[in-house]
Amino acid sequence: MPLSFRSANVELYCLECRARYRPEPLLYKCRRCGSLLEAKVEPVEPVVFSGKGVWRYSSLLPTPMAGSEPVTLLEGQTPLIKAKRIAPRVEAYIKLEGSNPTGSFKDRGMAVAVTLGKAWGFWSAIAASTGNTAASAAAYTARAGMKCLVLLPRGKVAPGKLFQALLHGAIVAEIEESFDEAVRVAERAAWELRLYPLNSFNPWRLEGQKTIAYELFEQLGEEPDAVVVPVGNGGNIFAIWKGFAELKDLGLISNVPRMIGVQAEGASPLVKAWREGSDPVVEEPSTIATAIRIGRPVNYKRVLRAVRESRGALVSVADSMILEAQKALAAEEGIGVEPASAAPLAAYEMLVNEGVIDRGEKVVFVATGHALKDPSVPLHYRIHRVASIRDLARLLE
Amino acid sequence: MPLSFRSANVELYCLECRARYRPEPLLYKCRRCGSLLEAKVEPVEPVVFSGKGVWRYSSLLPTPMAGSEPVTLLEGQTPLIKAKRIAPRVEAYIKLEGSNPTGSFKDRGMAVAVTLGKAWGFWSAIAASTGNTAASAAAYTARAGMKCLVLLPRGKVAPGKLFQALLHGAIVAEIEESFDEAVRVAERAAWELRLYPLNSFNPWRLEGQKTIAYELFEQLGEEPDAVVVPVGNGGNIFAIWKGFAELKDLGLISNVPRMIGVQAEGASPLVKAWREGSDPVVEEPSTIATAIRIGRPVNYKRVLRAVRESRGALVSVADSMILEAQKALAAEEGIGVEPASAAPLAAYEMLVNEGVIDRGEKVVFVATGHALKDPSVPLHYRIHRVASIRDLARLLE
Repeated sequence: MPLSFRSANVELYCLECRARYRPEPLLYKCRRCGSLLEAKVEPVEPVVFSGKGVWRYSSLLPTPMAGSEPVTLLEGQTPLIKAKRIAPRVEAYIKLEGSNPTGSFKDRGMAVAVTLGKAWGFWSAIAASTGNTAASAAAYTARAGMKCLVLLPRGKVAPGKLFQALLHGAIVAEIEESFDEAVRVAERAAWELRLYPLNSFNPWRLEGQKTIAYELFEQLGEEPDAVVVPVGNGGNIFAIWKGFAELKDLGLISNVPRMIGVQAEGASPLVKAWREGSDPVVEEPSTIATAIRIGRPVNYKRVLRAVRESRGALVSVADSMILEAQKALAAEEGIGVEPASAAPLAAYEMLVNEGVIDRGEKVVFVATGHALKDPSVPLHYRIHRVASIRDLARLLE
Repeated sequence: MPLSFRSANVELYCLECRARYRPEPLLYKCRRCGSLLEAKVEPVEPVVFSGKGVWRYSSLLPTPMAGSEPVTLLEGQTPLIKAKRIAPRVEAYIKLEGSNPTGSFKDRGMAVAVTLGKAWGFWSAIAASTGNTAASAAAYTARAGMKCLVLLPRGKVAPGKLFQALLHGAIVAEIEESFDEAVRVAERAAWELRLYPLNSFNPWRLEGQKTIAYELFEQLGEEPDAVVVPVGNGGNIFAIWKGFAELKDLGLISNVPRMIGVQAEGASPLVKAWREGSDPVVEEPSTIATAIRIGRPVNYKRVLRAVRESRGALVSVADSMILEAQKALAAEEGIGVEPASAAPLAAYEMLVNEGVIDRGEKVVFVATGHALKDPSVPLHYRIHRVASIRDLARLLE
C-alpha cells in the first residue's frame, strides 16, 4: 500500500540518471543504473519551522499523514558552541551532535526512517553498524514498538555502543567479517526476511540527517562558509549538503557552504578516490576512530557529488592528530567528543595552511558523537593517590 | 573584592536561623548555626526567559555584571519526553538530563558556579565526586580556562566518568576512603589551599540546577503535580524545589509540585531520617547506582525541607528494581539512562499503590544521567554469533 504524505509530492530519484520512482520501503537503488536513490520532498507551504525534534522541520520532510504518529525522542536542537581557543584563525563553531538522545547524530535519521518503516507496517528492522547506528536504531525501534536486529563486526565496536543496543532491547548478532560485509548481509537479509533496513543506504535516514543544515541556518541566522564533517560511510556529509542545497532552492540562503570531508588516514578510501580517481576501497581499514573505520563506503557517489558541487575537499588525518584534537577540544574548550568527531578539528591547521579554508571564515566543525561513546581509547593519563591536603597541594604546583 | 551582579540584590541566607550574608566565595555555612546557606536573587525586572543555556534564566540567576563573561556549554533545554507505555496510570514525562554537554544534570550547576568562581578571580577549583560532578567540573573549568582538581573514592567511579575528567584536563586524585570522606577533604582543601569548591554545598551550583524547574514550567506550560528525583547527596531535589518555589513567589504558578525523592535501598540515609527521625547516615552505602551511592548526604536538611514543605515523600527501591526500570525505559520508551536515573521510575508502582501519586496526575521523572555514563553494569544479555541469513532468520523467531 503506498504511503500518504502530508507533502503534495514525495518521490525517489536518481542523481546519476535522473530516473524517478514512487516511494517503496525496500526501494533504494535505481532500477536503471544501480545508484542509490535520493528522496525529493515538495515542501508543504508555507515552510514553517516550529516545535521540537526533527519534526520541527516537517514541512521539508517526508511526513506521513495524520494517523501514523511521527516517532521522536526529541532529537536535534543540539548546541552550536563558538570556539574560544582551538581554531583562532577562523570563526569556528562546534556542532554538538553528541547531545542527541543516544549520543550521536544518527538519531535524526532514525526518527524519520523508523517513522516511515512503522507507517509502512513493518514490525522488524535490521541495521549493520560500527556502533552508533546500532544504538540509535535500537532506541528508535523501541520507541516505535518494533523489533530490531543489529549486525556488528565482532570485536570492533566500542563497548558502550554495544551496551546501548542491548539495553534498548535489540537482538544483537555478530559476524566474523568487517563492517562492510555486515552492510551487505543486512541488505540481503532485509530483502529475504522482509525486514526494514536502517543503514544509510536508506534514503529516509538521510532526510532526517539533513536537518543539521536547517539547524545550522537557524542557529547562525545564515549559512556558514564551510562545514567540516567526519566521513566514514559518507551519508552525513551528503545529507548536510542536501539540506543546504534545499535551503538555497527555497531562497533562504545565497550559497551552499563548502563541504569538507575528513577521513582517518588508515580508512580513507574516499580521499584516495577524490585525489586519484581510484576505486573507493580500502581492504583493511584501520583507525582508532571506530565510528569511521569503513573501507567500502556505500555512499561514495553521494560524497563525491556533495564535495564537488560545493567546491569542498576531502582530506585525511593521522590517528595521532585525531587524539590530539580530541584532547584539545576537551581540555581547551570543555567539549567532549569521541575520536571520529575530532577528525574535523584535526584537519584545521592543514585546511587553513593549504587555503582550503580562508582566515576569518565562518566554519562549522560537526562533532558527530559524544566522548562517552568511546571512552576506551588508551590515553596515558595519570591518576594520583593522595592521603593528605599536602599531597593535593603538591599536585597543584 | 565583592562581586557586582546584574540583579539589584544577591545575598546568602540561612533557611534555619534566618541569618543573612553578603556573598563571598568560601562562605557556604551559616556562621551562627552551621547550616548550609542558600542564595537569594532579587529578580531583574522584567523577568524574561530568552537565549540558550542556563543563562536563558539570567534574570533569576546570580548573573555577574558585564565584564565577567558567563561560562556556558549551552547546557539545559533538555528534552521532556512523554512516556508511552511505562507509567500508564499517570501522565508521565521523562526529563532527559543526560542530553546535557557532559551527560548529566550537573552541567547546569557548574555553569553558574564556575562563572562566579572565575569572576571572583580563582584560577583553580576542587570537587569531590562519585563521577558525574568530576566530569562536569572538569569540562566547565576547562571552558573557563581554570585548573581543576577532582577527588574520587578509589575504585568506586564508573570508568567513563573518570575518562571524562581526564580528557577535560582535570588533575585526578584518588583517596582510599569513601565519597563522603572525599567531600570533607575537598572542603578542607578549598580553605587551606584557596581553591574554589565545586561540591553541592556550593550554593551557586544549586542556582544553576534550579533551572530544571523553570524549564519544566516552560515545557509543560504549567507546573506538574509531582516531580520524582533520584537522591544521593540531595542537592538536586532541593534545587528543583527552590526553582518552583521561586516561580510561585513570582506568581507564575499556583502550586509547588510535590517533591518525591528516591534512594537506593543500600544507600538510603534520608529515607530512614524521614521515617524514623534518625541521623541521616549509612556507614557503608552500597548500590549499583553509583551516582547515588552516598552515606552522608551533605544536603540532608535541604532535602527534608523540600520534601516536607512540598508535601512530598522519600522512598527507597531495591537495586533489582532499578535495573528493571532502566531496562523498561530503554526497551519500551527508547530512553537510555544510567542506573541512578532509573530509580524514580522503579518507585512508580509503589508510589501509585500507596497513594503518594494519584491516578491521572502529571508526573515528571527526572533522568539525571545518560546510559553511556555507566555501561559497565553486568546485564546478562546474549550476543549471537551468526554466519548466514538463515542464522538471522532464526533469531527473529
